[in-house]
Amino acid sequence: MKTYLDCIPCFFKQALFAARAALDDEAKIKAVLDRIGLLVSEIPLDSSPPETGRRVYMTVQEVTGVHDPFKALKAKSIHQALALYPSLKHILAEAKDPLETAVRLAIAGNVIDFGANPDFELEQDIQEVLQKEPAINHYQAFKEKLARARDIVYLGDNAGETVFDRLLIETMGKPVTFVVRQRPIINDATMEDALSSGLGEVAALVSSGCDAPGTVLGGCSEQFLARFNRADLIISKGQGNYETLSQEKRPIFFLLKAKCPVIARDLGIKVGDIVIKYALEAAMFSKS
Amino acid sequence: MKTYLDCIPCFFKQALFAARAALDDEAKIKAVLDRIGLLVSEIPLDSSPPETGRRVYMTVQEVTGVHDPFKALKAKSIHQALALYPSLKHILAEAKDPLETAVRLAIAGNVIDFGANPDFELEQDIQEVLQKEPAINHYQAFKEKLARARDIVYLGDNAGETVFDRLLIETMGKPVTFVVRQRPIINDATMEDALSSGLGEVAALVSSGCDAPGTVLGGCSEQFLARFNRADLIISKGQGNYETLSQEKRPIFFLLKAKCPVIARDLGIKVGDIVIKYALEAAMFSKS
Repeated sequence: MKTYLDCIPCFFKQALFAARAALDDEAKIKAVLDRIGLLVSEIPLDSSPPETGRRVYMTVQEVTGVHDPFKALKAKSIHQALALYPSLKHILAEAKDPLETAVRLAIAGNVIDFGANPDFELEQDIQEVLQKEPAINHYQAFKEKLARARDIVYLGDNAGETVFDRLLIETMGKPVTFVVRQRPIINDATMEDALSSGLGEVAALVSSGCDAPGTVLGGCSEQFLARFNRADLIISKGQGNYETLSQEKRPIFFLLKAKCPVIARDLGIKVGDIVIKYALEAAMFSKS
Repeated sequence: MKTYLDCIPCFFKQALFAARAALDDEAKIKAVLDRIGLLVSEIPLDSSPPETGRRVYMTVQEVTGVHDPFKALKAKSIHQALALYPSLKHILAEAKDPLETAVRLAIAGNVIDFGANPDFELEQDIQEVLQKEPAINHYQAFKEKLARARDIVYLGDNAGETVFDRLLIETMGKPVTFVVRQRPIINDATMEDALSSGLGEVAALVSSGCDAPGTVLGGCSEQFLARFNRADLIISKGQGNYETLSQEKRPIFFLLKAKCPVIARDLGIKVGDIVIKYALEAAMFSKS
């Protein structure tokens, strides 16, 4: 997905939120925004938003001197999600189609997002996502592909959401490689976050090598790209991964909640809608 | 009121909205945002937001070459408000306290705002404002001051809202000087807009001399300042005038609806709240 003009005010909003998470010094926060101002002319609209997001957050880190402004918030999100884990397990045990419910829970977990959605209400959102009909729903294709899949790559998104990913991975019951960001960026899940969410017990963990809040293939490690390219099923969580991979012709299922009007417009849906979208669905239809 | 850090993303949002109103050329709109980016480091947080708003809109005008991007929208707003005029007159005729209702209608008209509130619903908002209890309510003081006032200055805000101002001026039944902006800025009312709203029939019309979306006294004409300084009652409509005059120790009544979180916080109220605030109220209390 390209960068839309509407993303530019939002980069400032996100920089402000991150700078405030880093420190409480108005002059220094203003200095962050001054620097982001100088960046605007260098944002190519044909790049994906996470490519600029990466530069925005690096600027926040550089000017504030705080390497991981969301460290405490991430730990809190994981703690909050782990506390819900037993009741979510119970919901799955009672579900008519546990796989479908696990997919929905994984999408519900995507509301934990201090980038695009800082005011989320986790438990309320879980109930909503469990009941809501996805605006794009390729669940049947997902179920069929999953039954035959032998090499699954799961692209994580936010810390805390990782506990919901763990539930889906447990429910799928297949070998999975779970992918984290190379280093702290917004509240995206890093290796440390995946481990403290219990993902080490249910999946192989690798870093994408990418330090953007998404999966910019040009910035990923060769080790990751080899896995990505040979996977026969890729689960992509959240907006950032969608923004960076929406053009890829690979067997990717995008699971996300549309939290901003730009993504919603790009997908042809409304803000708040949930999505189970198969990247090859159009290609599949055109073949039939 | 000072500029808050949260105003900075909003300047970009407003520049984007104005640039889009001016033209449909993504590269040129991006060039506007690039220029606003360079402006960020020059925004002093101790200046009022309209002082920067002025520079933001001048940049839009300069880069797009469009002098008055909101010309058509302003004409439409005035047309829409004039169509409501007879039914609003009827509401006033039936009102228990026509002055109070006229004050509320004047506040309701303040929702017409393509700067802070582009998605307004005029008729719905009128009903809401007529029923809502103001979060700050110095109406009694207004009524008393008005009864004794001999020299009233009325600072206009947006085009269209001007029709509602006309209703209040008609209801007050006192000589009023209605003040417009020097030249087109966002959808703020200019002399032309005041005239086409019918204000020329009920008030003396003057320009403040100021070309910011507010009343920056340092940028006003001497002619206006003389009137402002000798007035025994000043009615200030909308956010921009509040932002530029909130510190003035003058007999000003601020009538507005809080349309952004920054103003709401500054006033100690919630977004959506309506306000009838007397600038000297605290001073009055401390004397008693």
